[in-house]
Amino acid sequence: MNLVLLFEEDFVSADRVCLSGRRHDHVRSVLRAGPGDTVACGKFNGQMGAGIIEEMDDHGLVMRLILDRPPPPPVPLILVLALPRPKMLRRIIQNVTALGVKQIYLVNSWRVEKSFWQSPFLEDDQLNGYARLGLEQAKDTMMPDIQKKRFFSRFVKNELPEIARGTRCITAHPRTGAPCPAAVNQPVTLAVGPEGGWIDLEVQTFEAVGFAACHMGPRILTVETAVISLISRLFV
Amino acid sequence: MNLVLLFEEDFVSADRVCLSGRRHDHVRSVLRAGPGDTVACGKFNGQMGAGIIEEMDDHGLVMRLILDRPPPPPVPLILVLALPRPKMLRRIIQNVTALGVKQIYLVNSWRVEKSFWQSPFLEDDQLNGYARLGLEQAKDTMMPDIQKKRFFSRFVKNELPEIARGTRCITAHPRTGAPCPAAVNQPVTLAVGPEGGWIDLEVQTFEAVGFAACHMGPRILTVETAVISLISRLFV
Repeated sequence: MNLVLLFEEDFVSADRVCLSGRRHDHVRSVLRAGPGDTVACGKFNGQMGAGIIEEMDDHGLVMRLILDRPPPPPVPLILVLALPRPKMLRRIIQNVTALGVKQIYLVNSWRVEKSFWQSPFLEDDQLNGYARLGLEQAKDTMMPDIQKKRFFSRFVKNELPEIARGTRCITAHPRTGAPCPAAVNQPVTLAVGPEGGWIDLEVQTFEAVGFAACHMGPRILTVETAVISLISRLFV
Repeated sequence: MNLVLLFEEDFVSADRVCLSGRRHDHVRSVLRAGPGDTVACGKFNGQMGAGIIEEMDDHGLVMRLILDRPPPPPVPLILVLALPRPKMLRRIIQNVTALGVKQIYLVNSWRVEKSFWQSPFLEDDQLNGYARLGLEQAKDTMMPDIQKKRFFSRFVKNELPEIARGTRCITAHPRTGAPCPAAVNQPVTLAVGPEGGWIDLEVQTFEAVGFAACHMGPRILTVETAVISLISRLFV
């Protein structure tokens, strides 16, 4: 937790918050901060800056806030991601949020096991919790929007063209001709498949709405590694 | 496991292997391959190609090999990494091996907890096991060399200049002036600190032997994410 993220309900006045629980524990036990010390803070979906600890005891702390800076700029990426297996989902959402992605569509694919869609890890509260960890890690305040799309074909054909309008559209797909571009410095919509990749019909469905398939070289990466690698390559 | 990695002791003749255990299970239960089917194979530190299954039963399988291709080219990177906490170590070694890194130095740092050096996860057999998972994932056969350097100052001052000779030397360090270069396309030695970063004295020790400190923007990434991101950015 490199940034203490603050929510409406934490505020006791316009520039003061009262915190208990996990954030209080972190400030006290990990940061070892006390009254008079300054802690990096940010308001959820708002400004960032410093919190000066005014009071602290075993139960909680009160900080006065000076939130005078905007959060870091987002990465101009719309990520379309085949739903990963539940144990990977947490880390992937956390990582891509830390990297600055603000629009994530979790979609179905032939190689996504049906049971993944029933996972309790996929509930909105859980997804937002993973993203929150990414914001706290990266020092950001702007929550990504995460949407679930159970029906691949309907989503890609009917919704994606409008969502991706004006962006460069790329499908990550091993064994295709073109290498993935680097440092594109323009808005991108990137479709990343499941372990094992998109099936050919899915790649064609993306192609039909303007997505170019491209590869990342001869090495096969896990989805978790591939997503970080692609984002870092596209936006340097 | 996208590649079945083969060792000397698996060979029953010049072009035949007999496998049991984990690899046999994988071929049968995950790949669902049987006699006549072809499986991607590679000889440890050698050529890659195909294995044609000749016999298979509950106990093992025999494959005839056609190993006619070299492994993918390595990434020209020497990675100097502050020893990560044991539970991260496995994934980091696996990831950087999958990305093609062949020289890894695990070094001490002020912010590395002393207890990490006593971890059983740090034994050579364990480290090589993590790297093997990365090779099997990425379809590569060339094992990285992983060395442990308990004494930071002695290593950086006395050994590193010779190791890094002829490469571009970079210390990853948040809050420094220069952004990390992209697509350098030349050999690089990259020093990545622990969670919380190198301390200033360590950055200076690197600088004294020719390392330039550079940052990755305003976002603070975990070591695991930062390493993947840096490699993907340096070599596109």
